[in-house]
Amino acid sequence: MIRFFAFLFLTVLFTNMSQAETPEPAPIRHIVCFKFSEKATPEKIAMVEKAFAELPSKIPGIKAYEWGTNISKEGKDKGFTHCFQLTFASQKDLDEYIPHPAHKEFIAKLDGLIADVFVIDYTVH
Amino acid sequence: MIRFFAFLFLTVLFTNMSQAETPEPAPIRHIVCFKFSEKATPEKIAMVEKAFAELPSKIPGIKAYEWGTNISKEGKDKGFTHCFQLTFASQKDLDEYIPHPAHKEFIAKLDGLIADVFVIDYTVH
Repeated sequence: MIRFFAFLFLTVLFTNMSQAETPEPAPIRHIVCFKFSEKATPEKIAMVEKAFAELPSKIPGIKAYEWGTNISKEGKDKGFTHCFQLTFASQKDLDEYIPHPAHKEFIAKLDGLIADVFVIDYTVH
Repeated sequence: MIRFFAFLFLTVLFTNMSQAETPEPAPIRHIVCFKFSEKATPEKIAMVEKAFAELPSKIPGIKAYEWGTNISKEGKDKGFTHCFQLTFASQKDLDEYIPHPAHKEFIAKLDGLIADVFVIDYTVH
């Protein structure tokens, strides 16, 4: 039993040490906000939400994906109703996402439905 | 040894089961983007970055805090250069953050330095 715990302790210790030696680079957040046009019916908006949510399964560089609709009460949303947040492990992965065929297919689906787009990316501090 | 592993297995099993029974509610993201005015010197911008980063230690409702400067190459950033992301566990925590004295003190420090602000909040899907 003592040998088991000694082994466990050393395993955990060395795992932590090796993690400390090779820290992952800070991820990159890709924040995308949509304001839909008058042509965007609730059905079409739902289609866009679904199509965007399918991208992580088509583009391996997307490390994390989340989204939601605006609930801010501060009145500084400039009319944007949807926010999507994609996380990439590196600038290279983000650079590959932009021209990716699956991303281009998604953008084609937005035709006529979007009144305005806001995009800001940052390395996490 | 067998009894030890049986205990370990059951502990992990029940821990997972109790977690599944009481899932945490989805967090709320509070995305804030700044465009600085011409009066904002690099020193004043650094003061704002520092003052914002101090809020999580003053306002316990802020569950997570991160920020970064814009690196998007898509030209859809509308001139915003800074993005701050605050995470709250609930709408109540976000509602308490907005009028919090420490938040108001921070906003007072921004006087004359900000050309535009964009804020969008969403419950994580």
